[in-house]
Amino acid sequence: MSGNTFGTLFAVTNFGESHGPAIGCVIDGCPPGLALSEADIQGDLDRRRPGTSRHVTQRNEPDAVEILSGVYQGLTTGTPICLLIKNTDQRSKDYGDIVQSFRPGHADYTYFHKYGLRDPRGGGRSSARLTAPMVAAGAVAKKWLAERFGTTFRGCMTQIGERPIPFESWEHVPNNPFFAPMADVAELEAYMDALRKSGDSCGARIRVAAANMPVGLGQPLFDKLDADIAYAMMGINAVKGVEIGAGFASVSQRGTTHGDSLSPAGFRTNHAGGVLGGISTGQDLEVAIAIKPTSSIVTPRESIDVHGHSTDIVTKGRHDPCVGIRATPIAEAMLALVVMEHALQHRAQCGDVVAPSAPIPGAAPAR
Amino acid sequence: MSGNTFGTLFAVTNFGESHGPAIGCVIDGCPPGLALSEADIQGDLDRRRPGTSRHVTQRNEPDAVEILSGVYQGLTTGTPICLLIKNTDQRSKDYGDIVQSFRPGHADYTYFHKYGLRDPRGGGRSSARLTAPMVAAGAVAKKWLAERFGTTFRGCMTQIGERPIPFESWEHVPNNPFFAPMADVAELEAYMDALRKSGDSCGARIRVAAANMPVGLGQPLFDKLDADIAYAMMGINAVKGVEIGAGFASVSQRGTTHGDSLSPAGFRTNHAGGVLGGISTGQDLEVAIAIKPTSSIVTPRESIDVHGHSTDIVTKGRHDPCVGIRATPIAEAMLALVVMEHALQHRAQCGDVVAPSAPIPGAAPAR
Amino acid sequence: MSGNTFGTLFAVTNFGESHGPAIGCVIDGCPPGLALSEADIQGDLDRRRPGTSRHVTQRNEPDAVEILSGVYQGLTTGTPICLLIKNTDQRSKDYGDIVQSFRPGHADYTYFHKYGLRDPRGGGRSSARLTAPMVAAGAVAKKWLAERFGTTFRGCMTQIGERPIPFESWEHVPNNPFFAPMADVAELEAYMDALRKSGDSCGARIRVAAANMPVGLGQPLFDKLDADIAYAMMGINAVKGVEIGAGFASVSQRGTTHGDSLSPAGFRTNHAGGVLGGISTGQDLEVAIAIKPTSSIVTPRESIDVHGHSTDIVTKGRHDPCVGIRATPIAEAMLALVVMEHALQHRAQCGDVVAPSAPIPGAAPAR
Amino acid sequence: MSGNTFGTLFAVTNFGESHGPAIGCVIDGCPPGLALSEADIQGDLDRRRPGTSRHVTQRNEPDAVEILSGVYQGLTTGTPICLLIKNTDQRSKDYGDIVQSFRPGHADYTYFHKYGLRDPRGGGRSSARLTAPMVAAGAVAKKWLAERFGTTFRGCMTQIGERPIPFESWEHVPNNPFFAPMADVAELEAYMDALRKSGDSCGARIRVAAANMPVGLGQPLFDKLDADIAYAMMGINAVKGVEIGAGFASVSQRGTTHGDSLSPAGFRTNHAGGVLGGISTGQDLEVAIAIKPTSSIVTPRESIDVHGHSTDIVTKGRHDPCVGIRATPIAEAMLALVVMEHALQHRAQCGDVVAPSAPIPGAAPAR
Repeated sequence: MSGNTFGTLFAVTNFGESHGPAIGCVIDGCPPGLALSEADIQGDLDRRRPGTSRHVTQRNEPDAVEILSGVYQGLTTGTPICLLIKNTDQRSKDYGDIVQSFRPGHADYTYFHKYGLRDPRGGGRSSARLTAPMVAAGAVAKKWLAERFGTTFRGCMTQIGERPIPFESWEHVPNNPFFAPMADVAELEAYMDALRKSGDSCGARIRVAAANMPVGLGQPLFDKLDADIAYAMMGINAVKGVEIGAGFASVSQRGTTHGDSLSPAGFRTNHAGGVLGGISTGQDLEVAIAIKPTSSIVTPRESIDVHGHSTDIVTKGRHDPCVGIRATPIAEAMLALVVMEHALQHRAQCGDVVAPSAPIPGAAPAR
Repeated sequence: MSGNTFGTLFAVTNFGESHGPAIGCVIDGCPPGLALSEADIQGDLDRRRPGTSRHVTQRNEPDAVEILSGVYQGLTTGTPICLLIKNTDQRSKDYGDIVQSFRPGHADYTYFHKYGLRDPRGGGRSSARLTAPMVAAGAVAKKWLAERFGTTFRGCMTQIGERPIPFESWEHVPNNPFFAPMADVAELEAYMDALRKSGDSCGARIRVAAANMPVGLGQPLFDKLDADIAYAMMGINAVKGVEIGAGFASVSQRGTTHGDSLSPAGFRTNHAGGVLGGISTGQDLEVAIAIKPTSSIVTPRESIDVHGHSTDIVTKGRHDPCVGIRATPIAEAMLALVVMEHALQHRAQCGDVVAPSAPIPGAAPAR
Repeated sequence: MSGNTFGTLFAVTNFGESHGPAIGCVIDGCPPGLALSEADIQGDLDRRRPGTSRHVTQRNEPDAVEILSGVYQGLTTGTPICLLIKNTDQRSKDYGDIVQSFRPGHADYTYFHKYGLRDPRGGGRSSARLTAPMVAAGAVAKKWLAERFGTTFRGCMTQIGERPIPFESWEHVPNNPFFAPMADVAELEAYMDALRKSGDSCGARIRVAAANMPVGLGQPLFDKLDADIAYAMMGINAVKGVEIGAGFASVSQRGTTHGDSLSPAGFRTNHAGGVLGGISTGQDLEVAIAIKPTSSIVTPRESIDVHGHSTDIVTKGRHDPCVGIRATPIAEAMLALVVMEHALQHRAQCGDVVAPSAPIPGAAPAR
Repeated sequence: MSGNTFGTLFAVTNFGESHGPAIGCVIDGCPPGLALSEADIQGDLDRRRPGTSRHVTQRNEPDAVEILSGVYQGLTTGTPICLLIKNTDQRSKDYGDIVQSFRPGHADYTYFHKYGLRDPRGGGRSSARLTAPMVAAGAVAKKWLAERFGTTFRGCMTQIGERPIPFESWEHVPNNPFFAPMADVAELEAYMDALRKSGDSCGARIRVAAANMPVGLGQPLFDKLDADIAYAMMGINAVKGVEIGAGFASVSQRGTTHGDSLSPAGFRTNHAGGVLGGISTGQDLEVAIAIKPTSSIVTPRESIDVHGHSTDIVTKGRHDPCVGIRATPIAEAMLALVVMEHALQHRAQCGDVVAPSAPIPGAAPAR
């Protein structure tokens, strides 16, 4: 509840600001004996880091992670793992203009009224840069889940602005800067180039999934697996909507269609998105999120200043014209953190449960 | 994290099963000195309770609430408020057929594999009946928030099955069994009659909103106000999607449109749905949820039994053909509980903050 | 943190007041599949209940427990277990005199200033009667721990007022109203009779222990096993001191004496009281607590009234002249709840740890 | 519950090991607008740091604190404050001998069996060095509490080994290395010199107090102020006993003596130690703790190795012969953290309570 810790049993406490000396997190509750080094974490950080294509912010951050604690002779000890990422390319002077005014669609206004003061440099604490430590923590969760259950996580962009992105294959995702599951992204490149030139920004829709899920993760009333996923996803900067499985399409489905029928070989469909009654079915988790257009844009906007007077505001500095472009590894990490938390929660209460019959093929018990 | 407690400072612990002797909740953390009696709570319970029209389950439950503790001489004392609702119309024999099999789209399968056993009577703990104590707790939150900030909550159905429901006026909502904001619901009645006759079920889309919100509620990184709303809504039985403000429509909006511009008179629009950076702006909270079609239907479905063998399953018993019909007061209650929690959280950390200038007209400081 | 929930994974939420209609608790997180009925709980409640000898309060309460939820066909289902105990012998008129004044040494004064109002009937929420639901919850924990690890709990009185009670044998404890480990309690009876006649009250010292403890329970920095025990014990009404193992005697011990040496056959001594570095060693947990004399006495005391004016106060009503007499089963229950919580916590994080060598004889791994 | 976070609303997450690159903590929930710099924190760290007299470990650590986040232009922003303390004088080779064996009275054994592995360098996570970040966090709490309520904290040593230390005056405490409230500490020096020469260690008794306490802090059933103090104190390395107010002496007091009588001028005595019913009275908090003798001593001890075989063990390296000597600032800090947490908790629930009459002179309302 403290606002900067995610999870209870696998608890990630995040700290730092966009333009402070460093950002990072403390992971508390990691099982002992996991082989872990910086190299296990850096890969996902590199997928998220800025400055890697012309379509994202040109801030140049290596986002090199250091493990400050919790690992001895290459193994986690069960004690807190502190991960530190130094900020190296702050240019706080770029933000001089917004110190006294509020960007429409930005947290400037709400921070000011909540706390009575704010750190305006690079958005301070509200910067999407604070997702980097979560990506790092998510990499630790991914590694443990892969080793224990074989669970894997992946995501892709399914729409950018008004442009849907057809799904061709997962294999294309790492080969373009958009995390698009298509071979030829020339049109997306052109779309983004035009958008950037116009001084505007756009939204995106991201799909994220987990495969080889154990069955039985999640609590029935609150702390449902899907409720915690919704919490995790809506907490990512700029997210305005979350769907599990069929999502909003389920409104116009009939029960005879939506309810995934079962056979000895498994579920016939996955409209549930891998969760029934808040508990994992063993099918793939399927999640979609809506990301709003960036609020920091160079087009002048009508606003007010800190004294309540009318003003026009233009955001200089280096910004992503579509924050959704870098959102895929973030969403994967948040999903991994939710699954990790529930794997430990399940073991706590139900560590010795043996169901009278095996789950369907492809789903392992959660022990 | 314990799975049956909602909130931390205004913590509601829910207990009971659909066919046990009673359901209820314990509210911990209610501010002292609030005038409270059963009558303050019963109204919302009556809006949710079953058996009030032919379109919902015919189970006849008065859902009469008793206050067992926490109130002395008509005022809350600051100690736990236990609310008890007795079950009076269980018919567990109706469920004999599903003891040995799993309903497609239902929690039967996941409970069985998580716990190794389950209470099949009326869905046991997975029954939507367990939302009743939350409606009761929400009524307490609503009362305190109304007295302190003038905050009010309301909701309506905006789509049933494939049929959108045009918004005419809030005033129609209490006058029909659907919580529909339209005067003439004859077509909705016909739609539901046909659906019921077909032995199938359908989904619904619900809108829920809060007005006269204080500015500054919510935590910036996790425990964001919108993240907690998403968690609360996705935790309601059968919900598969959540939107805040523009929601999924924001994907195809441009930044110049989506970012709500400010003037001394307030925000020009509310695409944000009342939340920026996880913190309330003082505008109305605007939330939409997608509810899937009921999984308990009389049409035979392909499934498996507890031994993993093929079977066909038909759900007898009394069920809602569209659980969305009774979802509006539930969603209101959950939204009120989230706002209540954040009002107390804000006061804890920021109880003495005075921002250098006043918020926009219509938004009160959260103190 | 909500003030009325004890534990996180095995979370017990307590509700009720001394003179309200009922008291009780909700246990959340109990492992599924535990055989449980009221009879498993009633025994410990009977050991604590009032009215069983002339040395304790004459309030006559059967303290009959009802299981309202969480058990199906005699087995726990993993969902919340609500335990209800009806109040049957309230006499609120006895308390008329103290409504307007504060008893020295009692919570009257602090409740009044914290909440601005209080329920004075029988002490309201501050009554030691609220330990009854904890004894009930502790009985559930004891049963699970006994079945899983063979862990058992017992306690006895070691001093009453200025009179030390020599330890003769555990077998005497159930045979006298004091939980004294001695055969002949005639002198204790005389001591209490004289005290009661004098209109005064006295304190007591209680020892409580756990045997057959698993090794490895507890978290190293906070949530240490001994820290949580201290929290649990100091939270019992009237407790003013807590010791683990050698306790305050360790101040004047040397390191060569205090540090329990190890041999392949086990530890040579148990000055540690079963905990090193916050984690259980597998030796017996050994805890001692100091209980202050009852504040509700018939001897007139100098005090003030709710308006701040001088007054004399005499407490009528039915009170224990030594609350320590009934404290033994309470302390056992609280210790069991702490161990239960840590058993689940340990399994969550370390459920698959296999240490390279076995623990010493008599200590089982915590899995 | 995650084991390395202290507090909920003012939550301090601790990380690091004795011989890792750094130790530190993240403070989450600090009220915004508090003037804060490293200088506000360094003073208490200097009181605790090693190497300042011949009576403590000769490890030379400047314990210089860096604020990595949460402060902007000299004011706290309400976002997480990360405090970093670099380790500079590790000598891990000193510990070569204990890698394969367990020190009697030390956490070596329990860590090994809990986690299946351990970091033996300087005690790793179990080192008392990890109290440094808590002293730093406590300094932040002290500053806020002093500014808001005038609350102050102080402590002293009252016994070392079998030698009681008479209380002469608080003013002597900063003038000797023992935190002893006496002018002439020559005998204490001689005592410690002889002890060190003998190759043994001894315990200590510490008193810690808070003055100018607000009335009304604490929750009535669990999260009692005294229960949380007991938890905090027993969680300090080597503590084996905790007393509030009269503590164990209350066992042999009568109710007529123990219950502090009230007059319009205030309480006549303070046997309660400032807490009644778990809630602060406004009197001084009075706490005493027992600290066991250090387990790391140069005298050979009987023990076993990691394979379970007999061995003798001698601890080289640099150790405090009496860890109690440096415990006073640690106990003060932990007490301040508990009071800070409860100040925020109280404001959350009772921020608008106005009691019908004022508290006694010298006690401020907690708002």
